[in-house]
Amino acid sequence: MTRGLFVVFEGIDASGKSTQARRVAELRDAHFTFEPGDTPLGVDLRRWVLDASTPMTPVTEALLMLADRSHHVRTVIEPTLDSGGSIVSDRYFASTLAYQGYGRGVDLARLEAATELAIGSCLPDMTILIDTPPELANDRRAPDARDRFESADLAFHQRVREGYLEIAHKWEGRWCVIDGSKSEEEVADSVDERLTSLRW
Amino acid sequence: MTRGLFVVFEGIDASGKSTQARRVAELRDAHFTFEPGDTPLGVDLRRWVLDASTPMTPVTEALLMLADRSHHVRTVIEPTLDSGGSIVSDRYFASTLAYQGYGRGVDLARLEAATELAIGSCLPDMTILIDTPPELANDRRAPDARDRFESADLAFHQRVREGYLEIAHKWEGRWCVIDGSKSEEEVADSVDERLTSLRW
Repeated sequence: MTRGLFVVFEGIDASGKSTQARRVAELRDAHFTFEPGDTPLGVDLRRWVLDASTPMTPVTEALLMLADRSHHVRTVIEPTLDSGGSIVSDRYFASTLAYQGYGRGVDLARLEAATELAIGSCLPDMTILIDTPPELANDRRAPDARDRFESADLAFHQRVREGYLEIAHKWEGRWCVIDGSKSEEEVADSVDERLTSLRW
Repeated sequence: MTRGLFVVFEGIDASGKSTQARRVAELRDAHFTFEPGDTPLGVDLRRWVLDASTPMTPVTEALLMLADRSHHVRTVIEPTLDSGGSIVSDRYFASTLAYQGYGRGVDLARLEAATELAIGSCLPDMTILIDTPPELANDRRAPDARDRFESADLAFHQRVREGYLEIAHKWEGRWCVIDGSKSEEEVADSVDERLTSLRW
């Protein structure tokens, strides 16, 4: 049986990546999944990571994300691909490198080694980075969510964005960068164009 | 304020290490702690790791252990040491290397990198390995627990034991190996002798 295709969408919060990921999964009849949290273990880990009442260091956060990812790979992503199904995932390994590594300063070389542990040989066929300026992403957020985006957050999201661009550069050929400042329709057209080049 | 002492006991299950760790902590008025599971997050992670109804790979197991360890270091071990208190811990970083690395075959170099992420610069002043042959450890276990120790388990525990001995060799000077096949009293005497050499 032919192995399915594995496509990942990455980007900062409110970059528009989730909209594109869901649209593509539906259009191509692929299994839509996301990180963190798309397994019973993942739901629990996601709750801990997002629970502001339990302060934790960026390293602990990263290790929980990686545990979630490792479980997600073995129980959802690989079985689906092996049985011929395709996967579209909202976030994958680059999220941890961009957020905890570039954004929060966790040692990148060790984080990469831990990432290799977590994902093994399960690399996406293509990762699409929706590159959106943090200021614009903030404007797009629901009004009641905007107050979380303070000036410190803006600098943080800028580091995350730059991290993503560095990773995309490093993985040139397996990644493509799409300008997320354009309209949703224009972004969708660019995404579809790239996926067609993947013969999908 | 003088930083407290950090002493760790390691060994295979039923090696006698927990008995010694608790005894030493009480005798020296140190804070007794253990891994995995001595924080609210850790209790949850320990439950997942021990829950046989959720199959998980050794890598996921290792990453959960490391997340627990990282949180344990920052919220329990370092604050106690910094405030002048001493710590005696039943298990620390070598458990993951011995069990998931040597025992289950998870890539050691990457596991070491992930371990460095998790513990940072928080190294024990001394680690005491209670080195007990798996057959003897099995005989010492409660009769109703013995059936978990099948022949496959014996080979596994042998690999874990050999892993511990390699780690102890590598960290010579910061580790000491005590013959766990001797009586509890003899082991206790050897432990106390080594701790005295630490001027404790």
